[in-house]
Formats: sequence, C-alpha cells, structure tokens
Amino acid sequence: MTQTTTQLHDTQATVDRRGIMIDRVGVKDVLFPIRFQLRDGTLQHTVGKFNLYVELPADQRGTHMSRFVEALHDNTLPISPNTLPEFCAQIQRRLHAPTAFVEVECPLFIEKPAPITGIIGMVDYKVKLSCKTGLQTETIMGVRVPAKSLCPCSKMISDYGAHNQRSEIETKVRYQGELFVEDLIEMAEGSASSPIYSLLKRPDERFVTQAAYDNPKFVEDIVRDFALALENDDRVEYYLVSAENFESIHNHQAYAVIERTKQ
Amino acid sequence: MTQTTTQLHDTQATVDRRGIMIDRVGVKDVLFPIRFQLRDGTLQHTVGKFNLYVELPADQRGTHMSRFVEALHDNTLPISPNTLPEFCAQIQRRLHAPTAFVEVECPLFIEKPAPITGIIGMVDYKVKLSCKTGLQTETIMGVRVPAKSLCPCSKMISDYGAHNQRSEIETKVRYQGELFVEDLIEMAEGSASSPIYSLLKRPDERFVTQAAYDNPKFVEDIVRDFALALENDDRVEYYLVSAENFESIHNHQAYAVIERTKQ
Amino acid sequence: MTQTTTQLHDTQATVDRRGIMIDRVGVKDVLFPIRFQLRDGTLQHTVGKFNLYVELPADQRGTHMSRFVEALHDNTLPISPNTLPEFCAQIQRRLHAPTAFVEVECPLFIEKPAPITGIIGMVDYKVKLSCKTGLQTETIMGVRVPAKSLCPCSKMISDYGAHNQRSEIETKVRYQGELFVEDLIEMAEGSASSPIYSLLKRPDERFVTQAAYDNPKFVEDIVRDFALALENDDRVEYYLVSAENFESIHNHQAYAVIERTKQ
Amino acid sequence: MTQTTTQLHDTQATVDRRGIMIDRVGVKDVLFPIRFQLRDGTLQHTVGKFNLYVELPADQRGTHMSRFVEALHDNTLPISPNTLPEFCAQIQRRLHAPTAFVEVECPLFIEKPAPITGIIGMVDYKVKLSCKTGLQTETIMGVRVPAKSLCPCSKMISDYGAHNQRSEIETKVRYQGELFVEDLIEMAEGSASSPIYSLLKRPDERFVTQAAYDNPKFVEDIVRDFALALENDDRVEYYLVSAENFESIHNHQAYAVIERTKQ
Repeated sequence: MTQTTTQLHDTQATVDRRGIMIDRVGVKDVLFPIRFQLRDGTLQHTVGKFNLYVELPADQRGTHMSRFVEALHDNTLPISPNTLPEFCAQIQRRLHAPTAFVEVECPLFIEKPAPITGIIGMVDYKVKLSCKTGLQTETIMGVRVPAKSLCPCSKMISDYGAHNQRSEIETKVRYQGELFVEDLIEMAEGSASSPIYSLLKRPDERFVTQAAYDNPKFVEDIVRDFALALENDDRVEYYLVSAENFESIHNHQAYAVIERTKQ
Repeated sequence: MTQTTTQLHDTQATVDRRGIMIDRVGVKDVLFPIRFQLRDGTLQHTVGKFNLYVELPADQRGTHMSRFVEALHDNTLPISPNTLPEFCAQIQRRLHAPTAFVEVECPLFIEKPAPITGIIGMVDYKVKLSCKTGLQTETIMGVRVPAKSLCPCSKMISDYGAHNQRSEIETKVRYQGELFVEDLIEMAEGSASSPIYSLLKRPDERFVTQAAYDNPKFVEDIVRDFALALENDDRVEYYLVSAENFESIHNHQAYAVIERTKQ
Repeated sequence: MTQTTTQLHDTQATVDRRGIMIDRVGVKDVLFPIRFQLRDGTLQHTVGKFNLYVELPADQRGTHMSRFVEALHDNTLPISPNTLPEFCAQIQRRLHAPTAFVEVECPLFIEKPAPITGIIGMVDYKVKLSCKTGLQTETIMGVRVPAKSLCPCSKMISDYGAHNQRSEIETKVRYQGELFVEDLIEMAEGSASSPIYSLLKRPDERFVTQAAYDNPKFVEDIVRDFALALENDDRVEYYLVSAENFESIHNHQAYAVIERTKQ
Repeated sequence: MTQTTTQLHDTQATVDRRGIMIDRVGVKDVLFPIRFQLRDGTLQHTVGKFNLYVELPADQRGTHMSRFVEALHDNTLPISPNTLPEFCAQIQRRLHAPTAFVEVECPLFIEKPAPITGIIGMVDYKVKLSCKTGLQTETIMGVRVPAKSLCPCSKMISDYGAHNQRSEIETKVRYQGELFVEDLIEMAEGSASSPIYSLLKRPDERFVTQAAYDNPKFVEDIVRDFALALENDDRVEYYLVSAENFESIHNHQAYAVIERTKQ
C-alpha cells in the first residue's frame, strides 16, 4: 500500500528485541570543508574526514543516519580539540543518545622556514582528533609527522655515508590544560634525526644532510625520545607514540610503538 | 674540501652527455591549500594535491626541484581550468623549460538540495585538472562523480527488487569556450540511475529509491548516455568517460570506458 | 677508522639508559608467499603481509631487525590460527625477547557455488590473524567478508525497489577449541541480506536479488545478528563485529560495531 | 509477470540504438590465485588482480559479465607474457568480441642473496602485464622495482653524509623475442644507487651503505640509465621508465619519466 509522505514509517524507531546494545553506529568517511584553529588563534581552511557515531540502546532498532550529517552542516564552530566536545555533545543531543563519538582527520599546513636561508615552505601534517561525550567527556589529540631518520648502525659500521629515509612519527595524547597540535609536531620533529621541509635551497640541503648525519636515530630512539618529552610534560596524562621508517635499504618498514597512561 | 655556502656546486646544472631528453621531471604529490573557482564565480577553500613537471633537455643533468615548490607558494591565482595555463607558464619560465605540466586533484564541495524536502547537504566530488604549456597550451578538465546505478537485467528478471550500488563516474574533457566542472557533474549525474546525496530524509529516500528503480542503467548505459551528452555539446573537442560499479552482488567492479576525439 | 667485517660494532646491543621499555618493535608490511591451512585440512597458496614485533626491555638500545626476516624465511609451518603460536614463539626465542607478536593478513579464496545453477566461483576474503606469546599466549582470528545489504527503511517507505549496496563485515574473535575462518565467514554471510558471489548466471542473479529484498538489514541488524551467532557459540570468548555499508544513495559509509568479552 | 528460470530475458543482448561503440567494458579488480612463470621455467604461486575487458559493438546493449569470470576460472595456463595472448583470445572468443583486453598485476617474489654474506632473502616486486587481442595482438610487460637512490647534490655540497631514500622504479615495455620480468628488474636495479634487499646482516648493510654513497643518482639519472639499457636491448620496441623518490628531506616525491617508441 502506498504511503503518503507525511506517514512514512520510521523503521529505525521500532523496538528491537535482540537485547544487544551497539557500541558505535553512525556515518563514516564524510568529507567536509572545515576551519581548523591553530595555536596562534588563526583559523585555517582545510578538509576534514569525519566519523560520527552514537551508542545505540538495546531496545532501539536503528539510529537516524541523516541527523549526523545535519549536525555536521549545522556546526558553526571551528574544529580544534577545544571545540570538539561541544560538537560531540550536539550530536548526542540531536540523536538522544547516551554517548556520542566524533573522529576527524585533516591535513594541517604549517609555514616552516628553511634552516639556513629562512625561505618559507608549507609543510603538511595529518591531524587526527577524537572525542567522546556521555557520562564522561574524553578528547584525544593526535598527529602524524613526516621526518627524517638516519640509521646509527649504518653510520657506525660504514667508512662513509649512512642509510637514511622518510619516517612517519605518529602520536595521540590525552591531556589537561592547554596543549596544541603544533606542540606535538615540535616534539615529534625533535625526536627524529632531522625535520623535513617542503622547500630547501642548496645551503639548507647541506645543513639538513649534515644535521641528520650528526644525529642518527633508530625507530627505537625516536619513540623513546618522543616518550621522554611527553613524560616530562605535566599536561599529558596518556600517550601513544609510534615511528615507522620507510627503510631505504628494504622494501618493508621498521616500526616501534610505546603506549603509556601516567600514574 | 668544505665549500662555503655561497660556492655550493650546482650539480643539476652540469652538462649531461647521455643524450636523452626527459619527458617529465619534477615534484609529485605536493599537498597545498587552494581556492577553487566555482561556476558562480565564488572561491571555495579546499586542499589540492599537485604534480608539477617540466621537460628536461638532453644536455641538462637535472632540474631544480625547489623552484617548483617556490612557484606553488608564489602563486596568487585561484585554481580553475581558466587560471591553470598562467600558473603552468610561470613554472615553465621559472625553470627555463621548453614545456611545463601541472596536474592538480582536489575535493570540491557542492550544496545539493534533497529532491523532496529540499534540505541542503554538501556533496564532495573529486576534481582533476591538468595543463601543459610550451609550443601549445592544452588544458584538460576532469571530475569523478559518485552516483547510483540500478541493474536493468536484475530488474527485468526478478519479480521484485533489483540490485543497485554506488558507481563512480569519471570524465575528462578538452574543450573550447566556457565549460565548468559543475556542468560535467550534472551530465554525469544525469547519466546514472540517480544522483546521490549526503542528506536525505525519509520522503527523499523514498523518491531516490523509486527514481533509481524507474531508471535502470548498466555501466554501458551510463558511459553511452554521458558520451551522448558530450557529443551534443559543441564546446567539447575530446572526452573520456568511464563508469565503475561497485557491484552489490560481487566483490569486484563492473567497468566501461569510451574515449573520443571529435572530428 | 675502518672496521673489518668481523669486528663490526653491534650498536643495537648497547645499553640504553633512558629507562623506557618499548611495547612493540620490529618489521612491518613484509610481503611473503604462504600456504594457508583451510578447514578441510588442505593448504592454499596465497600471499601474506606480515608485521613481526617483540617487546624491547628498557636497557637495550635496539632490536635486531634482520632476525625477524630470517625467522619468516626459516618458518616451514603453514599459516593458520593453530600454527601461529609456534611461529611467534620462534621469533621470541630468536630475539631473546620477553614477548613477541605476529600479525598476518592475506586474501583467502573459497569456491562458492551459485545459489541456483551451482556453478563454482572463487570468492576472496581478507583474513587477519594475530598472535602474542610471552607470559601468556593469545591468538586472535579475524576476517573481512564482502556481502550485500538492503535497507529496511527504503523498502518499507517505497512503493517498489529498495536501495542496496556492498557491505564489508569484519570480525575478530578469541576462542577455545577448534574454530575456522570459514566458520566466521558463514556467520558473517548469514547476518547480511545476502552473500555475494563472483559468478552468477541469470537464474542466480534473480535469486540473489529477491533473497536480499526478502531479507532487509540495517548495519545495526547485521552486527546484532552476527553478535547473536557468536554469543551462541561456546567456543568464542571475545568478539568484535563491525559492518560498513558503502551506501548506494550517499558518498559516505554507514557503520556499526559491537565488541564484547563474554563472562 | 513471473518468468520461469529458462525464459529469463537477456537484457544485455538487446539491440542498442545510440550508435556508440564502447572501447572497453568488463570486470575490474578480480582477485584470483595464479601461478606465475619465472625466467627459469618454474611456476610461482601468487595472487593476481585482473581487469578483463572487451570492445562492445555499437548495436549491442551490454556485455555478459559472468563470462569473464568463467574464463578466469577455466584458464589452466600459468600467467606470463607468453601465455597472456592465448588467455586473452579465449575471452575474445567466449564473448564473441572484436577485441579483448587482459590486465593483471601480482606480487612476484625473487630470492636475492645479500651482497657480502650471501644470505638469501625474498624480495617482492609488483608485476603488471597487459594484453590486447583482435586485429593485432599486443603484449606489454611491466614491473615496479623498489630500489635505493642517493642524492648527488646532497653528497656534493655536504662535508659528510648524503640524503638517500627508497625509490620506486617502474617500467613497461613492448618487445620481440624472449624477455623476462627478471631482466627488467636487473636493469632497474642497475640504474639505481643500489638495489634493496629484504635481509641484510651488518657486513651487508655496510656494503650497501657505501655502494650507494659511491653511486649517487638523481631521479633523472635513474630514468636515463634505465632508458639507455633499454635502448641498447634490441628486443625492446617501446618502453616507458619512471622513477619516484620518496625524498627523505621532503614530504613529497621527486619524479621523472621517459617514454619512447624505437624507430
């Protein structure tokens, strides 16, 4: 029987008798233009990829998927670890859910002067934020940082040269007080053999080459030095750090990870 | 012997004696924030992934990679098929090259009203532009459009229902006069069983479900109907259209492609 | 000073004074040809992607990366949840580590008769196994299963048709006794609107079209029905199930996940 | 009206009046276990990803997708550039098509002794073959080879060290007579600063480090030296060579490509 538009059955709202609560349900991989709030307060235009979820009580057949997308369209806040709890709470209210989750990933662009000439180049980092609201609110800030690693063993055992490669250093932290993605990027780059840059003239390339050779690091060294920096930062309550070296002598990666909840 | 910074040897500029011209050399996968010019003249903030290349004459050892990134930083033009030749020509001049190439890919967001309720949702499309300058200037505009396809065979042979799925329709065109990415998106969506949306309420979902059932299309139908639209558009000189169905009854894709240069 | 080959310094073996144990360190994304042991005992040739890690004590500077690859080359066992603990223990011994970890992911091919004609087609599933040895041995078996989902809401509110799409159903389980990847695949497919196939003739396509229309499922239904099957299986001690629908009316995914440790 | 199974309408076989021939239509990304024939005649078990297409005449509404998968299942030949034309011709006959196309991509594993210790490690390469049958038969053999590149500029301008990185060298060739993937791999590795290995002990790592430092190469040098090797090989009629350096000082790639048809 044909239904009229105003009478369309709400299948999702029917009662479910299987007795199983669903941890997370919602929409995944929604691309959306955003403004990301930087450490200096300015807003950067970029593109976010969002996952928006709620917990679904055992007696409810389905969630209302369109409301997640509406919440994203209606959001007027810039995106940052500070604003995410409010956006997440909006989703929780709109869906009448006991718990809501927001995950967003976006490229972040930072102007970085070359080490000698000072010429400015734009480096892209991959930011990953997540937030959960409900009984408790928890925000996790993360970032993936490209850097340079130079092998201490290769340097030590060779008469000249040392293999080096691009490394991807990733972290996520739970923290109190004010902490910024830029802070994490600086700690990550400080743990590598050298930062990378998008724009290097010859004097800069010479500097980076020699600086990395003077500062060899295993993946083990990178994650330990990054962990030390986070241990020494009282704002940080929990952290995960990993380093993945795209080894220039192999077709696989070297990888290390440390995860800690501080006492 | 240690060189001073002002005397650093320009290895790239040395003469090459292998006698082999290089078709394209430069930087690949450079992420950069851009403003994309829409059909209505407004500028949309998004993120581009760039490939920037030049042709390298046979007698030159190497190109100067940092100049590509400088050109990208110095570019003040928004990105569009109309502005790309000027940006590409800047690269050609900066590198003193006989030919230069720019390729850029970016998500583009378009506000799209739901078919019945008219609620606005943002749909993302993947734009791909390329440009070549040198003896001749050639610009290619392309876009990848998600859409819905419903199988005519499944509908015909079944008493009820019909398998349907997400389809990715891709095109690239060379053209004269004014043509916009939005024009191509409309043609692509008009060739599918139905457009897709980011935000649909129940009356909209009912409409899209029935509209797709009323308009079944094989991948073959999609590329032929898209090709017909491009054949009938006098601005288009060359086109490629493809459709890739993520079949909901298989773990592989159905795919079709048509490529034509008009006489 | 030049070292002779027999005196090359073992940098990794030096003492580390930072006092930080590393949770996991080793090699990532190593491709290797393997034989996977099927439920019927036969061995299937396929290609595995391996992550091999150990825990690194706080006082050791680095692990010995080449030994992981040697362990992989020396392994003569086929790959299965039953054999993984022995392979993982070999790595632990070879590296003198307190804990070792093996993760492997591979396509698995299963011959599947079409539902009406019985014609055999090969369907590929993505198997993911992981194992940890040390104080305790723990093996997790997982698989990602493509299937078909048909929207109950779309069916209910429309006069004809219903949107449907490819869904990816993923699970991982910890279990006691004998359980096989094929068992999990059957449970996953039984939770969807219909299994998918690689080879369907018209009578089969008609059957699958109608069967899916007769059996509509939200992502919520898929994960709940899969969870019920695992709850009712006494071998299973822990499980995670997720479903990801590549919505044919949207450019994003619908997603749901349930994770439980049984009491 | 319900159809009986034996009367199901063949929608694909109906006449199309749009008058547009389709260049290629068929199935894409079909995973299938294969045996790849090596240079020494042995067969290696691996996993292929297949695209199988035909040209569709203007008056035919659709192709018959299931026949492509049947052809793949019925194929008893191992996969190699020599056997592909016969497999492609089988598809052409089965689909009654004027032209057929096969594309297959698979990992290939080659045992490679470390340069000093001679320990054997398995290195994976990505093979890409394509074949077209119809008026003419054309087979293209390609492979993607990981290797090591060390920057000549960085070495020249620095007092010590030089940045180096993983490089992906890719080629495809059309040829006459006998030529093997292994031949192309050897030429690719000979064009880089050094081959990579999966298993290196310290004496080997020292050797590779120094060998790469002694043999610096720009991406431009890699493609030119590879092109020279192919120019000097009389079997090769057409070639494309590219090199993509995952720069260890940048977050983007350096890229170069040369394509030539010999006279």
